[in-house]
Order: sequence, then C-alpha cells, then structure tokens
Amino acid sequence: MMIGKVSGEIYSTINHPFYDGRKLLIVSLEHPAGGYIIAVDSVGAGVGERVLVLDEGNGARQVFAADNAPVRSAIVGIIDSVDVPGRD
Amino acid sequence: MMIGKVSGEIYSTINHPFYDGRKLLIVSLEHPAGGYIIAVDSVGAGVGERVLVLDEGNGARQVFAADNAPVRSAIVGIIDSVDVPGRD
Amino acid sequence: MMIGKVSGEIYSTINHPFYDGRKLLIVSLEHPAGGYIIAVDSVGAGVGERVLVLDEGNGARQVFAADNAPVRSAIVGIIDSVDVPGRD
Amino acid sequence: MMIGKVSGEIYSTINHPFYDGRKLLIVSLEHPAGGYIIAVDSVGAGVGERVLVLDEGNGARQVFAADNAPVRSAIVGIIDSVDVPGRD
Amino acid sequence: MMIGKVSGEIYSTINHPFYDGRKLLIVSLEHPAGGYIIAVDSVGAGVGERVLVLDEGNGARQVFAADNAPVRSAIVGIIDSVDVPGRD
Repeated sequence: MMIGKVSGEIYSTINHPFYDGRKLLIVSLEHPAGGYIIAVDSVGAGVGERVLVLDEGNGARQVFAADNAPVRSAIVGIIDSVDVPGRD
Repeated sequence: MMIGKVSGEIYSTINHPFYDGRKLLIVSLEHPAGGYIIAVDSVGAGVGERVLVLDEGNGARQVFAADNAPVRSAIVGIIDSVDVPGRD
Repeated sequence: MMIGKVSGEIYSTINHPFYDGRKLLIVSLEHPAGGYIIAVDSVGAGVGERVLVLDEGNGARQVFAADNAPVRSAIVGIIDSVDVPGRD
Repeated sequence: MMIGKVSGEIYSTINHPFYDGRKLLIVSLEHPAGGYIIAVDSVGAGVGERVLVLDEGNGARQVFAADNAPVRSAIVGIIDSVDVPGRD
Repeated sequence: MMIGKVSGEIYSTINHPFYDGRKLLIVSLEHPAGGYIIAVDSVGAGVGERVLVLDEGNGARQVFAADNAPVRSAIVGIIDSVDVPGRD
C-alpha cells in the first residue's frame, strides 16, 4: 500500500459497466522515485487530498463489493495525519 | 493502473487460442522512469492514442470474459481528457 | 518479502470495517532504491523496530484471518537479528 | 507483459515435479532500466530470439495447463515483427 | 522469477505457525538495479549459493504445500550452471 496526493482526474471511455459513474483519479506518489498511479476512488477523495492507495486486484474488488470488476488500484482512505517521530 | 500512449503493435506466434485475433499493443508509459508495457487491446485502441492500462491478471481476464486466459495486461479505456488543476 | 524499519504511523479515514482498530505503519525499506511501504501491523511493531513485510494480498489476508479484507501489505514479523557472513 | 531477447539458459536443481523437462531461460528485457527475467519456455524459444513474456502466476499456470505449478513467468510467444510507426 | 546469491539469514519473531522451523534467507539479486529479496527456503540453500527465487504467493504456497500460508517469496532451486552464449 502507498500514499500520495490526488493531482487530477481522468476521463476515459471504458466499456466495462463497473466503471459507470466511478471517478478515476491520478495519485502522485510520495516516493523517492516519484511516479503516479491511476486509482478508482472509493472514499470521495478530491484533488489536493492525501490518500491511501491499495494496489491489488482482489483487495480492490472487495472495496467495491464487485467480485468480477476489472480493477487493480483503489483509493481506500483519506489521510488525516502522519506521525513520523524525529522528522521535522 | 497506468496511462500511456500506444506506440506500436507486436506480431507474435502465440500458441494459446486466447490470442487468436487479439491485438497486442506496445504502450509507452507516462512515467518519470519511462518504460513500456505490452497489453492486449479490448477497446479498439490504435497507435497514437492515450490509453488506460489494467495490469493485473484476474482483472484482465474479466475484461475479456475469459476465465482461463493467459493474460495480465489489458487496454481497458481510451482517454478522452485529463484534468490536472494548476498544471499548464 | 522485504525488510525495513518502522518510521511512522498513518491516521486515515477508511470506510472498510477491516481497518477499525488496525495500525497502519510506514516502513522505510532497506533497499538501494530507498522508498517505503505502508503496511498493516500484525505483530505489535512500533516506530524504530526492524520488521519483515509481506506484500501480497492473499497472504496478508491469511495473516489477519480475514478472507475478504482489502489489504495487501502486512508486517508479519519483528526482526531479532540478521546474520550476513563477511559483512561488517 | 513484456518483450525481450533470450540470452541464456539456467540449469538448476528444483524439487517440484513441474520443472522436470522444462527449459528455464534468461530473457534480457527491452526496457530503459534494463534487467532480465527468468521464465519457463512454452513455445520452443531459443537463445537470440525475441519473445513475449507473461509475468503472472495464474496466467502462467494456464499456459502449462498445470493448476498447481509453482511458476510465475512464462515465455508465451516468439515475436515475428514489431511495427512502431515513425521509428526508424 | 529471478536469480541471486544467498547473502544471509534473518531471525524474526513471526506469529504464524507456517514459519515455525522455516529458514528466511536474504537473496542479493543479480540485477542492474541491485536490491535483495527475503525468501523462504525450500531446497536447503545456504549462504553463498546461487538460487532461483519464485516471487508469487500462490506459487510459493504450492511449493510448501501450504494453501493458507502467508508467504510470497520462495527459493525454489539451487542453480547448477548458467549458459549464456557469447558472454565471457
């Protein structure tokens, strides 16, 4: 699992009905290598918010209670605070 | 899940019947580290189009409604637009 | 599987009941590329401890005996010692 | 899925009967980051050939029709040609 | 699947009974990016030996014939020789 900040939204023509009405967000990862991941929102996250991303298909399908959904990455939480002792 | 641009097509002799008539596309990833992924098309994508790629076997098999297919990466959407507030 | 040091804790609003009362920890990986992973604690690990992380959904769900949990990464062990012959 | 060139073969003592008589090949990946993957051949590939690699356990097990095989990476195709418009 | 050399052993307090009596080894990967992986031994490998690592949960569980084990990475073979034509 990873954390990052929602930086944008993607509008895409996707055939599978699972995606009807879902929000596809770009999450810029907090990681030395940078990068991003595209994830389906499950918590009402918006641009600028720090989020927790679950990047695993079977778990993501559980989040949406959709056993057959073609999904791998889901935003599963909005981060309230991060406590790293000794870091300014 | 990730986004990228279709840059080419691969012609390959593959024994498994799942691949008969499938299009195998090269997707150049939009990622700081660069790279590409080979994905099976499910939406009629062509060279030059920006696409959404699902890189997970169980999800990809759902996209093709083929429970036993030896596939991991599928192009599942054509990107219409990307909205990143604050980015030029 | 990988090893790292717990460097902090994340407080997040997550809807799925699996996360009620779980500790979400940041583990800084011992890896040349650096980086971190967010993992759910299963062994009572705390900040500063070296831990073993299992980063696979089906295995993580077994750790928590929660077949349907939306989880991928679990702290499964606290490292007592590492024996690398020939390394100072 | 990824492409690469077969660069060598590995001879290894493996206990699981799935590997009896299988060819374990080294595939040098065509990727900016370089690297390689060890994959089990399913198409009669040899050193010097460009191949398509499927790197996912459930899919690889389908390729070999071996539901319980301890395998993740399979060479599933020999590449006949790659068509990248605009690239010399 | 990947190859590497066993460089050390990890002693860890792990609650799950699967790990009772298992050897947790550090494998330094033969990869341009370097790095290591922690894997459970299944072949009697020791420090200094070149090994084949299977990094996939369902496959690793087959290796140990333990359907519910919280394991992802297993050492599945000891490498006898590597044949790379044209390489000194």
